[in-house]
Amino acid sequence: MQRVLIKELDDKIGENVNIKGWIHRIRKLKSITFIVIRDRTGLVQCVVENHLLIPQLSVETVVSIEGLIEKSENKLNPYEVQIHTIQLLNSSLETPIEVNNVKLEASLDTILNHRMLSLRHPSVNSIFKIQNILVNEIRKFLNQNEFMEIFTPKIVSEGAEGGSAVFKLNYFEKQAYLAQSPQFYKQMMVGAGFEKVFEIAHAYRAEEHNTSRHLNEYISVDLEIGFIKDEYDLMKIEEELLKYLLKEVKSQGEKYLKILDVELPDILGEIPKMEFQKVLHILKTQFNRTDLNGDLDPEAEKQIYAYCRDQFQSDFLFVTNYPKQKRPMYTMPFGESGTRSFDLLFKGVEITTGGQRIHDYAMLLSSMKARGLDPESYVSYLDAFK
Amino acid sequence: MQRVLIKELDDKIGENVNIKGWIHRIRKLKSITFIVIRDRTGLVQCVVENHLLIPQLSVETVVSIEGLIEKSENKLNPYEVQIHTIQLLNSSLETPIEVNNVKLEASLDTILNHRMLSLRHPSVNSIFKIQNILVNEIRKFLNQNEFMEIFTPKIVSEGAEGGSAVFKLNYFEKQAYLAQSPQFYKQMMVGAGFEKVFEIAHAYRAEEHNTSRHLNEYISVDLEIGFIKDEYDLMKIEEELLKYLLKEVKSQGEKYLKILDVELPDILGEIPKMEFQKVLHILKTQFNRTDLNGDLDPEAEKQIYAYCRDQFQSDFLFVTNYPKQKRPMYTMPFGESGTRSFDLLFKGVEITTGGQRIHDYAMLLSSMKARGLDPESYVSYLDAFK
Repeated sequence: MQRVLIKELDDKIGENVNIKGWIHRIRKLKSITFIVIRDRTGLVQCVVENHLLIPQLSVETVVSIEGLIEKSENKLNPYEVQIHTIQLLNSSLETPIEVNNVKLEASLDTILNHRMLSLRHPSVNSIFKIQNILVNEIRKFLNQNEFMEIFTPKIVSEGAEGGSAVFKLNYFEKQAYLAQSPQFYKQMMVGAGFEKVFEIAHAYRAEEHNTSRHLNEYISVDLEIGFIKDEYDLMKIEEELLKYLLKEVKSQGEKYLKILDVELPDILGEIPKMEFQKVLHILKTQFNRTDLNGDLDPEAEKQIYAYCRDQFQSDFLFVTNYPKQKRPMYTMPFGESGTRSFDLLFKGVEITTGGQRIHDYAMLLSSMKARGLDPESYVSYLDAFK
Repeated sequence: MQRVLIKELDDKIGENVNIKGWIHRIRKLKSITFIVIRDRTGLVQCVVENHLLIPQLSVETVVSIEGLIEKSENKLNPYEVQIHTIQLLNSSLETPIEVNNVKLEASLDTILNHRMLSLRHPSVNSIFKIQNILVNEIRKFLNQNEFMEIFTPKIVSEGAEGGSAVFKLNYFEKQAYLAQSPQFYKQMMVGAGFEKVFEIAHAYRAEEHNTSRHLNEYISVDLEIGFIKDEYDLMKIEEELLKYLLKEVKSQGEKYLKILDVELPDILGEIPKMEFQKVLHILKTQFNRTDLNGDLDPEAEKQIYAYCRDQFQSDFLFVTNYPKQKRPMYTMPFGESGTRSFDLLFKGVEITTGGQRIHDYAMLLSSMKARGLDPESYVSYLDAFK
């Protein structure tokens, strides 16, 4: 018999069906047992006479059930399954996580060490469902805006961009690195004539990773656009993308947001923008932060968030015109010591870094030298600008 | 003035526009010069009076042009641009590749060493345009079939699956590896309740890479499905996916296929299937291959392709039921020495490997031991089956 998904059962009342899934809950009475089955589409209550039971049944075992769908009043659905046969597909040891608890009650260690089990809990898998909506809709938005998806190498021969630490590996006889971003490649793909490209892929940083602000391996969404006027074109498209995403996640992800008890922010009108020096000034005058030495620390980001919330009723803030020494060598300078660059802060946490890139060979070369970088380490990147 | 793309110019006859792009061709006459501009959407002929020219113009320089769109008879379009102003955005050295030649005439070394330039040539960038159609349509097909996209770690702590060599890296104080496939993770995501998952991401093999059959870093399309009956379910969905992709690439990619002078194969009816032992038998009796020691070499794959072409009029062949010793430890056994596994050969080259996985803890453990693998090295994977 062909397997039917639980979400399809409301069309099958009065029919014999086969369902497959995990035992979510089990309650044995004197002559019958109630079994709730879970598949990827939902939950359904099943009833079985005890003489049909098999010994290994417990929560999280995997079963195949044949039975009749009958109308019923139960908490889950207006129907239930009268089991005719039950077959064990895989047994389960006692689980260190109670998947069927409304709230996931386990320590972070237990949750991470038993990832396959914790992912079965709605409060964890909802995060991945929302991630899935996000990546699908990011791609849809970018495809509609004529971006082309690219796949760039992660084993790279040229070293760091002059910032974070990189992972090293032995590539046969040579030393190679794990790419900390697709920066060089996406610029070259713009120069190769594709003009608007994006990549959603792994990025690597060999940084300490026991904070919520650092990850050694993460999925990075990267865009690159040719022929922009300046960094304001980039902030504009990011704002459009974010508005689109918030709308889509709110509608497609409603169920998961509710499980997670998360309320998404709104972006009303434009995201406020503030120059970096202005941010420092506000931190100094409003929060007495005289200790900041030309950079924002996590505390400062929280403080500017509070100010921004108060002044602009916004959870988002573009901080623009970062000082040169805080930005990578490929960042287009602006004035004496500034750059055509920005960060997007969301509730006081940096969620994007962006900026216009230097496209002129001589300017790029002198920017490298000014930072003490050896142009010999960036030959293929530099060649592209010739 | 807002930039207009070349593909939009046919709507703008009689208007002044701004276009931006690369100089594709330049031909100077006595008083005027013809310049062909290329952007990501096409080519357009422009005419400029010589006194308006600037010195640095040559092929592949990047320019911004303002001018009037007028009707015209030229090889490219029924219109051309009468240039009013021309502005240099970036200059170019003499290029080692002639981008505007109909045929790309350069050695493989030159093509690879000047990748940004060779990618500007239609015979190279068409490959990436088709790649882009493929990934978009693979995702579309899989999303429509209720697969969820996942992102799995590529820095992994557990070693090889018992096959190809892996890249090692130092992960702080520990030894880590680059994942050769998302196999363990995608199985665990199925077990986590997502049931049908896929990933399109980087995979790594530390193998020799100077053959057309090996790559150190490549983009792998990986699916995993729970609750299958056996490997025939997998071959069925792959066949459907391939038929869908061939149709989409043929229609959306028509232009690029023509540039590449490629004719796509058809899949008429079912892809033929042949057991591995039968393949060996045919190679022995038809091609006198008495030297094959239980495996197919590249020559043998070509020979079975010729046979398959001849007998079934098919470029595709599923080879099924590979011997146990040729398959990884997680492959479901079949009979005494076979497995529920398959390869898909296309024109004599393996393009897919698949199979049913062992889902039973005890069976998996004994399969590891039978291959001399240490279960201690696979603790988190094994735990998932408990």
